[in-house]
Amino acid sequence: MQTVNGQAASAARDGLDARPEVSFDTEPGRYRHWRLAIDGQVATLTLDVAEDGGIAGGYELKMNSYDLGVDIELYDAVQRLRFEHPQVRAVVLTSGKERMFCAGANIPMLAASSHAWKVNFCKFTNETRNGIEDATACSGQTYIAALNGTAAGGGYELALACDQILLVDDGSSAVALPEVPLLGVLPGTGGLTRLVDKRGVRRDRADVFATTAEGVKGAKAVAWRLVDETATARDFAAAVDRLTRAAIDRSTRPADGSGITLPPLRRSADGDVICYDHLRIELDRPAGAATIVVAGPAAPPASLAALHAEGAACWALAAVRELDDAILRLRINEPDVGTWLLTTRGEVAAVAEAGALLLAHADDWLVNEIIQYWKRTLRRLDTTSRSLIALITPGSCFAGLLLELALAADRQYMLDGVFSDDEDPAPPAVLRLDGFNAGLLPGSGGLSRLRTRFTGREADAAAAAAAAGRDLTAADAARLGLVTETPDDLDWADEVRLVVEERASFSPDALTGMEANFRFAGPETSETKIFGRLTAWQNWIFQRPNAAGPEGALRRYGTGQRADYDRKRV
Amino acid sequence: MQTVNGQAASAARDGLDARPEVSFDTEPGRYRHWRLAIDGQVATLTLDVAEDGGIAGGYELKMNSYDLGVDIELYDAVQRLRFEHPQVRAVVLTSGKERMFCAGANIPMLAASSHAWKVNFCKFTNETRNGIEDATACSGQTYIAALNGTAAGGGYELALACDQILLVDDGSSAVALPEVPLLGVLPGTGGLTRLVDKRGVRRDRADVFATTAEGVKGAKAVAWRLVDETATARDFAAAVDRLTRAAIDRSTRPADGSGITLPPLRRSADGDVICYDHLRIELDRPAGAATIVVAGPAAPPASLAALHAEGAACWALAAVRELDDAILRLRINEPDVGTWLLTTRGEVAAVAEAGALLLAHADDWLVNEIIQYWKRTLRRLDTTSRSLIALITPGSCFAGLLLELALAADRQYMLDGVFSDDEDPAPPAVLRLDGFNAGLLPGSGGLSRLRTRFTGREADAAAAAAAAGRDLTAADAARLGLVTETPDDLDWADEVRLVVEERASFSPDALTGMEANFRFAGPETSETKIFGRLTAWQNWIFQRPNAAGPEGALRRYGTGQRADYDRKRV
Repeated sequence: MQTVNGQAASAARDGLDARPEVSFDTEPGRYRHWRLAIDGQVATLTLDVAEDGGIAGGYELKMNSYDLGVDIELYDAVQRLRFEHPQVRAVVLTSGKERMFCAGANIPMLAASSHAWKVNFCKFTNETRNGIEDATACSGQTYIAALNGTAAGGGYELALACDQILLVDDGSSAVALPEVPLLGVLPGTGGLTRLVDKRGVRRDRADVFATTAEGVKGAKAVAWRLVDETATARDFAAAVDRLTRAAIDRSTRPADGSGITLPPLRRSADGDVICYDHLRIELDRPAGAATIVVAGPAAPPASLAALHAEGAACWALAAVRELDDAILRLRINEPDVGTWLLTTRGEVAAVAEAGALLLAHADDWLVNEIIQYWKRTLRRLDTTSRSLIALITPGSCFAGLLLELALAADRQYMLDGVFSDDEDPAPPAVLRLDGFNAGLLPGSGGLSRLRTRFTGREADAAAAAAAAGRDLTAADAARLGLVTETPDDLDWADEVRLVVEERASFSPDALTGMEANFRFAGPETSETKIFGRLTAWQNWIFQRPNAAGPEGALRRYGTGQRADYDRKRV
Repeated sequence: MQTVNGQAASAARDGLDARPEVSFDTEPGRYRHWRLAIDGQVATLTLDVAEDGGIAGGYELKMNSYDLGVDIELYDAVQRLRFEHPQVRAVVLTSGKERMFCAGANIPMLAASSHAWKVNFCKFTNETRNGIEDATACSGQTYIAALNGTAAGGGYELALACDQILLVDDGSSAVALPEVPLLGVLPGTGGLTRLVDKRGVRRDRADVFATTAEGVKGAKAVAWRLVDETATARDFAAAVDRLTRAAIDRSTRPADGSGITLPPLRRSADGDVICYDHLRIELDRPAGAATIVVAGPAAPPASLAALHAEGAACWALAAVRELDDAILRLRINEPDVGTWLLTTRGEVAAVAEAGALLLAHADDWLVNEIIQYWKRTLRRLDTTSRSLIALITPGSCFAGLLLELALAADRQYMLDGVFSDDEDPAPPAVLRLDGFNAGLLPGSGGLSRLRTRFTGREADAAAAAAAAGRDLTAADAARLGLVTETPDDLDWADEVRLVVEERASFSPDALTGMEANFRFAGPETSETKIFGRLTAWQNWIFQRPNAAGPEGALRRYGTGQRADYDRKRV
């Protein structure tokens, strides 16, 4: 398997063989599509897509349209701004092209892509846009869309993820969602949801807007709440300046934070084993399973100052960076590996100690960033279409931060006792709850995973919460409802083998649908709506002949031929 | 086109030609699959499916499995219990078969059905189950599932819609959701949502349960909250009796209500025109549009006593019965008619007067039933996969109850002025808001349509609410944000023609997905989750080769061959 960064052959999107690996490694010096410029408290991200820089072959990225490779760079920039540039309080998204901010996802790319590639691509772009909103909400880095040209489709959806939208009033630049009229698909990167739920666009106007291919511009765009304001080309820079200054004034981000550098991740692959510093992945492709082992900290930093000094080497940050990368890579590169066995190795006390330092300094900017990164990465796990099974065995360290991995899983298996054939047996596994499980790492629905686990059962939730700080044996964990099964040494191997075999025997689609429903009990939010309602509808449409068939709109786009629709409503 | 009641050839499910019409007319004397018995305050609905009674040919309804025809009878019974039997406070759902409560939706029927038929069938069954919950919540008629045998798949989902579930403890009867392991589809009739959200089943246990084909029985079913209690066969009747007595005691339903009879609807079809007493539908099949005209009341009853005396002839009830029937029939019989133009004819003052009587007596049991029926029917409109366009012209009567029709629409067009070529011109149209628009008829999200329309815009919502009781001209309505466009006589015909043509030119699937997102701004509830998240995933899966393809699980079920899955996760 050939590894490529930022470029992979079109084979990536279809067959199983000769599929080059997609990598998410990049840094600003290697960007081909974005430019990141920092000026004091303001960062400017300029989209200037290299037409010939598609991550897969067979299409040109015209009119600042994007593909996965473009979005990988955006994701990298959003992450680095939070960790490397804490002084930045306002981020301006704008375009390096004339009269075109961004034309959205590249259509020839979508038309040529497999269903799985489209779905994966949309999921990642959605996560990146949610991350932009998270930067504003949780880190005081306000994103401002400075639309110096037309923002269409995914381009406008990117603007919708920003806190404010400024549109140039030049008589031609518009915002538009042409997916329904031109492509027979949805604005599926949050667009439909954010229009009505976030921006309060009246639903009948949203209907008109999303069926008007040419979009809306000028005063009408403001009146309809599609953008916050417009400015002539002459006044545009001044308007951007005014918006960024107001965002700077609103931000509570500390002015004295000193950024840390995010170095490239160390990752090596040897056959079916992928190793990071704190993460080890063992692939069992015939079984359709991967075992993901997260190592706990060796020696947590002794103080906040030591944590800052460690920077990206600090376990809590290094481990989550690796986990994030592993999730992204396994999702897109290993679609046949449908079951992920999640486990940990290390000392419960060390994880708890590392966690305690973070909890004690949760208002420090870097600690906050580390916590928010865990939050986002765990949410990425929640929306991952893989069966997640936590394995809790002697030598594991499911405490606090790492216990969330188990709580994110679809099931939890905890060994009752020890493995008798273990040469150097560790003591029986224990779980330990702390503040991380009590609400610091809410899922997309806004509640902690523990609270969601006990939806409708207040007493059970309270009992679990009251057990915080104690080492919980398998019997304790079972009694408190924290684990699914507690097999002993005799049954362990069979139980784990059976669940992996069973998962592999089921329809992957049915599992995906089932898991997507069970993982989101309780309240819905804009974010769960995007991943639930909107994404599910889009996935449905992506399979319909009216979109993806030979006469469908996606395939006919740009050919001069109109799509030939089956007009039956379903 | 041949009309059939409760039976239609299998052609119904596929092609366009020779498709017999599905009718929703029935009454207990004609039921083939259910028996309705009333004993004082307790009704018993016994499912005893006639194997040869499928609504379409080509399958046998074995093991109390159901198809659309079985559910049409259930819907009829649920409705009649509310109107004809106000004294009933507890409804027992049970089975007339040995050891089998209900095996769920008939699989050979699903396997042979078109995608559209499956989706429509599931939507209707979901609505009926929501209606069961609504009867308990809003009318004090508590449904109790008395599972005297196994409840599998849709059979258990029917039980989940009941307020309480009693399972016979006979060593073999179980509750089960075998869809994922056996069929490669989801328990899509609310099952996944109700397990975790309504019953508080822990999500890891829900995962185990929904992947265990044989299900769970006895004490474990109680411990896992899958059922409320179990009883041996000997104690079963006593347990049912105890549960019904408790439900009777809890109910606030008046003991002295005297039921009204729901006679068959009068409906006639002449070419492309369908007429009811208060409803007229004009089909324009070449344009893919239907005009639905709801007539306002001639002379509203003068008093509550007069309303009771009128019974089913009372306009407010008769009109909503007809509207409900029309929605159901158009949905399934006219899939190519993708745009519904909703309008009204009558006196605004008369609608307001009829509404005022209802509002003044909202706590009367019959008035409450009429209001709740409007609520459910408007929600049925919300989940209908058709573009809904309200046309507000002189002679229309969009006040209160009927104004909700306009607010349920995707767009509202209101003529500014009069039609100059009208021989006997009515005065310009006006809208009138009243208590019905202020929260008495909430959508699935729990908020009024007016509130949802102004999501995130408190001031606009307050301004609209403050305009209640006044006749609002086109200019007023536009200013208050109640209508989308207010063309004058010169532009009206072109605007309406254009919107119909435009809608017909778009992908019906993209429109369905778009409308399903815009109509549900604001909070999500269990009901919107079922129609949003769960249904959307199911629709996706229903199209996947792993379910519906020649080697998919649905098609291979019962053949002895295992499904051949593409194991890639999407």
